[in-house]
Amino acid sequence: MPTWQEIVADKRAQRAAGVPKDWIVTSPSADVLNVIDLPRECGLLSARELEVTETTDVDVLLKKLASGEWSSTEVTTAFYKRAIIAHQAVNPLTEIFVEKALARAKWCDDQLKANGRPVGPLHGLPISLKDQLKIKGLETSMGYVGWLGRPAEEDSVLTEILYEAGAVPFVKTNVPQTLMWGETYNNIFGRTLNPYNRNLTCGGSSGGEGALIAMKGSPLGIGSDIGGSIRIPAAMCGVYGLRPSYHRIPYYGAVNSLDGQDSLPSVFGPLSNSISGIKAFMKAVIGSKPWTKDPLAYHKPWVESEYQLSEHGGGKKLVFGIMWDDGIVLPHPPIIRALEETKKSLIAAGHEVVDWKPHRHKDLVRVLFEIFTAVGEEDFRLALDLTGEPIMYSMANVEKGPYTPPFPKDGISAFQLWQVHKRKLALRKEYLDRWQATRATTSTGRPLDAIITPAACGASAPHGQNKNNYIAYTSVYNVLNYPSLIFPVTKVDPAVDVKRSAHKFFNEDDEAWYNLYEPETWRGAPVALQLVGQPYDDEAIVGMAEIVDAALKA
Amino acid sequence: MPTWQEIVADKRAQRAAGVPKDWIVTSPSADVLNVIDLPRECGLLSARELEVTETTDVDVLLKKLASGEWSSTEVTTAFYKRAIIAHQAVNPLTEIFVEKALARAKWCDDQLKANGRPVGPLHGLPISLKDQLKIKGLETSMGYVGWLGRPAEEDSVLTEILYEAGAVPFVKTNVPQTLMWGETYNNIFGRTLNPYNRNLTCGGSSGGEGALIAMKGSPLGIGSDIGGSIRIPAAMCGVYGLRPSYHRIPYYGAVNSLDGQDSLPSVFGPLSNSISGIKAFMKAVIGSKPWTKDPLAYHKPWVESEYQLSEHGGGKKLVFGIMWDDGIVLPHPPIIRALEETKKSLIAAGHEVVDWKPHRHKDLVRVLFEIFTAVGEEDFRLALDLTGEPIMYSMANVEKGPYTPPFPKDGISAFQLWQVHKRKLALRKEYLDRWQATRATTSTGRPLDAIITPAACGASAPHGQNKNNYIAYTSVYNVLNYPSLIFPVTKVDPAVDVKRSAHKFFNEDDEAWYNLYEPETWRGAPVALQLVGQPYDDEAIVGMAEIVDAALKA
Repeated sequence: MPTWQEIVADKRAQRAAGVPKDWIVTSPSADVLNVIDLPRECGLLSARELEVTETTDVDVLLKKLASGEWSSTEVTTAFYKRAIIAHQAVNPLTEIFVEKALARAKWCDDQLKANGRPVGPLHGLPISLKDQLKIKGLETSMGYVGWLGRPAEEDSVLTEILYEAGAVPFVKTNVPQTLMWGETYNNIFGRTLNPYNRNLTCGGSSGGEGALIAMKGSPLGIGSDIGGSIRIPAAMCGVYGLRPSYHRIPYYGAVNSLDGQDSLPSVFGPLSNSISGIKAFMKAVIGSKPWTKDPLAYHKPWVESEYQLSEHGGGKKLVFGIMWDDGIVLPHPPIIRALEETKKSLIAAGHEVVDWKPHRHKDLVRVLFEIFTAVGEEDFRLALDLTGEPIMYSMANVEKGPYTPPFPKDGISAFQLWQVHKRKLALRKEYLDRWQATRATTSTGRPLDAIITPAACGASAPHGQNKNNYIAYTSVYNVLNYPSLIFPVTKVDPAVDVKRSAHKFFNEDDEAWYNLYEPETWRGAPVALQLVGQPYDDEAIVGMAEIVDAALKA
Repeated sequence: MPTWQEIVADKRAQRAAGVPKDWIVTSPSADVLNVIDLPRECGLLSARELEVTETTDVDVLLKKLASGEWSSTEVTTAFYKRAIIAHQAVNPLTEIFVEKALARAKWCDDQLKANGRPVGPLHGLPISLKDQLKIKGLETSMGYVGWLGRPAEEDSVLTEILYEAGAVPFVKTNVPQTLMWGETYNNIFGRTLNPYNRNLTCGGSSGGEGALIAMKGSPLGIGSDIGGSIRIPAAMCGVYGLRPSYHRIPYYGAVNSLDGQDSLPSVFGPLSNSISGIKAFMKAVIGSKPWTKDPLAYHKPWVESEYQLSEHGGGKKLVFGIMWDDGIVLPHPPIIRALEETKKSLIAAGHEVVDWKPHRHKDLVRVLFEIFTAVGEEDFRLALDLTGEPIMYSMANVEKGPYTPPFPKDGISAFQLWQVHKRKLALRKEYLDRWQATRATTSTGRPLDAIITPAACGASAPHGQNKNNYIAYTSVYNVLNYPSLIFPVTKVDPAVDVKRSAHKFFNEDDEAWYNLYEPETWRGAPVALQLVGQPYDDEAIVGMAEIVDAALKA
């Protein structure tokens, strides 16, 4: 039996061997923090390949692919090269399979030629997958050494649907051990870095996706989110990301942490450099009737009229609530500036903006953690004990030492879990009633159309410092099942985002987070916010995000 | 502190006092088994009251109420009198509140006069509620002595919606202790009987509803179903009953057993003497946008085109699967005859009927019971220990002795529960794939439109004999989340439904059930079947039930 270290060494060698030799570039030295322009500057990509990969509007890509103006082979090759460049700078990839992906791209090209029509709504588009989604014949280790050496016997349902829609899955991307972290680091593949500042985390758990897409190494990626795992990396890497409502995107046949837990379902969702990418994914996947393949998938088509805001006055005059802080950890100055800029832009565009106060967020987060820890380490141990690989109690560099383990060793009883469910439901009812009650105060007679909140208490964090106590800005909406979309607003500018004088701290975490902030540490880090709607308002949240985005760009 | 027996005596006296003295009829002696015609024969109801209460088509009732042709006061009085007659024969009621209900009916009448339009889609209609739904000011004991003496401080969400729709909640109805039985018997209110044969059970847990509606003491009742609790009494009492898909009808604010359990949600649904009653309820409640009041309610409107079978070829030629038995307990001869008659009628009406084999029903039922027993007696004890009321280990008359307790004393861990969830999901996926695969064999190219199965292995059962091992015909669809509608077909006729020769028994339960059958014991008992669709096909199941019903009546 090989040791877990030997298995890891093999896997790393295999991954390295998957990189075509002539795609290897001179990696910037470790002291170069911002590597976002490496793909433009390294000289590997042709002008045409730069044009293709910098076409961030996925609708444009899809149109050119469907008409054959750009072949899938050309587009996939361009993104693959760029992904490999990104990989050498920030380490986002777990599975590299150039030949398989290009064979698929060629098949799509051949189909288009033979039939005169695209294979499906995502014809020819390269798509990156978080390393939870199975592709037949490839490994899905999810960062566990013990899960290596088991090539998938079939595709996950979502993979199957992407293939049917004409897509070209082309890489798989990195995650943290157990998935239960807002950073991305595991014993097999190591750490994924933030391409805007490699001293900062890319976020997690879908951190490979965030970093890859920020470097335009993929036009569209699939992450998953149970407490912020799509939204945290999307925000920290400055890309769009949607956490859809439960069960709109099929999950069947994917690997996961805490498998069998359905108190608080993890959901798959898209990350992209454009809202058109988010929409194209949602529309294609939901349009495929996933409920005929996944017994848990919500039986509701993509409703185009809801996307056109039929239930929100056609989008003419929207009323947004802004939540400035959650009463747990005050956001750093760049986040507050982003909220102010967004408010100003929305008012300038003719919309209404009112304050929204958090309601019992601490209790919501407590429910989340009680569910996450309900089986202690038992689920993780099933995977770790296969090889003796050590559990990570921190995302910090090991020499900096662990901080408090987030998971107790032991779990609770089914009866105790059901008591948590009761509190969860009561909290959801209170929040719903509060939101619905706003109809009495808006000028439209509708409840608030959406709320805008920080995506996190900071624009990224130094490695190991994005503690689980800090993820409340995203995780409360997992408990509430509110669809939430991340949109980038600005970048940290140390000249503007100066440290403020100390406020009356909410608690120790708040104080520690305040003390951590030094503008220079965060230089250039993306700053994003979160647009939050009512359950199953996914179509409308995408439609409203376009309006917010346009207002910010105006 | 009074003893539990004293509390029960008080409650019974209070309930008896709620019956207007001039509504007391001569109760038939205990040896009169069939009391279904008592309301017609007892002389209490006027010709007009008989006409009103025997208007089984709820659409007709609603039309007359909305136009003011019949006042709500008149209709509510007529049904209330008939409910009280039924109560004296089969004991279906727990809460009787004539004054309150008639005040509400008068308010509806006044509104119609004042505004010239009905209050809502259920204007003026008396509706009976299973004793889980709260009405402000009334008790909701759910058969637990310890829950008496706590008048509700607010309505359940569903009650609130019914009031907004113009309905007149007018009685609450009986349940078994803990709700977890297919019969109806508890320490407070005693046993509810089958009006077609008082030696037989009315089924459960919504047995009060089944018995009351069979006697036309209510035009529309609300039951709940977690393993068959709407469908078993509907079938055994010969009325229509729908178990909707999870979360289409709001549950928030109702009392329940195993509260906090959401592995296998209980659902509310309608029982009625007509499919129009089923439809009116579903359309009115879903049309009220319950997701704005209940955080778990599915955000999907009532889709009239789906009811018109837009996804089922417009209903022109449907393909039904018939499941003749589940491989666990063979149905008694009357059930098999009902399946044969239904098949013949559907073919005569131009539809296609094919055989459908059960798939791993034993495993599905095992999952159900592992979830039901996951906390042992702990949840029940919370209620029972308030007064020392004894737990019932059987629905038999006590002197006949208990049979194996259905619930272990101790529960399992959250980890163990999650392992059950994994098996549940895999079974659901297998069943879905199997159903979808039928598209390869039907003449329409669609998967089977619906399947028709027994509702239970018999047409009712002697008291205490409807054991939990026998409820698989309904409970598998709770695990699968398939909407299922009960439709009456025939009555047991000892001359036709003779005992068959013994088959090769599936197991001991099957043998015991075979041995129990003597045609004379079941004389006159209603025989019903179950129409089952794919998850969230609720609208279509109602639409198809009309087609099946019409074929049977043709």
